[in-house]
Amino acid sequence: MGLYTDTGVFVCFEGGEGGGKSTQSQLLHEWLSGEGYQVLLTRQPGGTAVGQQVRSIVLSPETGELSHRTEALLYAADKAEHVDSVLLPALGAGQVVVTDRYVDSAIAYQGSGRDLDPAEVTSLNRWATGDLRPHLTVLLDLEPQHGLGRFAERDRIEAEGEEFHQRVRAAFLELAAADPEHYLVLDARGSIEEIAAAIRARVTPLLGQAARR
Amino acid sequence: MGLYTDTGVFVCFEGGEGGGKSTQSQLLHEWLSGEGYQVLLTRQPGGTAVGQQVRSIVLSPETGELSHRTEALLYAADKAEHVDSVLLPALGAGQVVVTDRYVDSAIAYQGSGRDLDPAEVTSLNRWATGDLRPHLTVLLDLEPQHGLGRFAERDRIEAEGEEFHQRVRAAFLELAAADPEHYLVLDARGSIEEIAAAIRARVTPLLGQAARR
Repeated sequence: MGLYTDTGVFVCFEGGEGGGKSTQSQLLHEWLSGEGYQVLLTRQPGGTAVGQQVRSIVLSPETGELSHRTEALLYAADKAEHVDSVLLPALGAGQVVVTDRYVDSAIAYQGSGRDLDPAEVTSLNRWATGDLRPHLTVLLDLEPQHGLGRFAERDRIEAEGEEFHQRVRAAFLELAAADPEHYLVLDARGSIEEIAAAIRARVTPLLGQAARR
Repeated sequence: MGLYTDTGVFVCFEGGEGGGKSTQSQLLHEWLSGEGYQVLLTRQPGGTAVGQQVRSIVLSPETGELSHRTEALLYAADKAEHVDSVLLPALGAGQVVVTDRYVDSAIAYQGSGRDLDPAEVTSLNRWATGDLRPHLTVLLDLEPQHGLGRFAERDRIEAEGEEFHQRVRAAFLELAAADPEHYLVLDARGSIEEIAAAIRARVTPLLGQAARR
C-alpha cells in the first residue's frame, strides 16, 4: 500500500492546468514557515539538476514529437532522482515537503491522456519513486475549459486538445476517490483565500510529525 | 517471447568495455554495405537527438552521483525513443540494423552491476522497447581486466570497480546461455579478422529478409 514516512509531512498538489497549484503551494509554504515549521517547496518535473535537464527535453517545443513511452520514462527518471536526492532526505529530517505535482500527474497525463496502459504507467512510477506516497494530496479540480487558455504561449502538454485534458481530469478524480483518507479535492474556482483556508485546515492535524525550527 | 520483425534484420553487439564492439560493428556495416544491403549502424545510448541529451546527462562526470533508478530510467528513455523513431522504421523498410549495445546492456549494468532487482530492470526495458528483440546478439566476451584500462580517461561507468564489471560479464553470459538461437558468443581476445569472419558467417543466413539497394 505504499510507503508513508513516519517523520516529516509530505503534501503534494495535483490537478490540470490553470487550477492554481503554484499559488496555493506557495501560500501553504508561507503559512507553514510563518508557523515555525521547516518547509521545503519543490516541484516535478525539475526539482533537481537532472530534473531540470529532463524538464527542458520534455517540455521544449523544439524537441518535437517524443514517443509516449520516452516521455513517460523521462518523467519517471525525474521522479526517481527527486525522491532519492530531495524528498527522502527532507522528510527524514522532519521537514514538511510541499511539491507541485507528483506521481498522480504521471498516471493522469501519460497513462490516461496518452495511449499507454494506465496500469503499466502506474507500475513504472511506483517503481521510480520506491512507492513513496504523500500523506496528503490536494487535488485542485477544474473543468479544462476554465483552466486552459490563460497563457498566450502554451507548452507541449498544454497544446493538447480538450478531450485529452478531460481524460486527465477524470484520472485525477478517480485516484482521489479510491483513497479519500489521503486526498483533499477542492473546486479550483473558489477564491484563493477560501481554498488556502481549506488546505490549512486539512494539513494542520498532520503536523504532529513535523519539525519546528 | 518478444517481437522479432519479419522484415529487416536486427543485429546487436553486446559486452563489457574494451571488447571491440565499435570496431566489429563498423566492420560488419562495411561488409554488408559492400554486399549491397541497406544498413543502418547506430548505438545506445545516443542514437537519437533525445538520446544524445540523455547520454550526456548519464555519462558526464559532472552529473555526479545519480540515483540508480534514475540512471536505469534515463537509459530506458533513450531505448524507447531509439526503437520507435529509428529501429522500427529502418526494420520496416527492410534494412539491416546494427546497434552497439541494446537491452542486454541495461540488464547487465543496471540490473546486475547495480543494486536494482534484475527482474524489475528487465521488465522496465522490455516495456521501454515494446519488447523488440534482435534476431542476433553478438556478445564479445572478455575478462574485465583485459578490457578496462585501455583509455586514459574513463567515464562514470568505466570507473566502477572490477567486481562490478565481473557481475556485468556474468549477466551477459547468462542471457546468452538462456537463448542460444539468438546469440553468438565470441572470445574478444581473438584477432579482429577472425572475429569479423565468425560474425559474417552467422549473419549470412539471416539476410534473406533484408533489402538490397
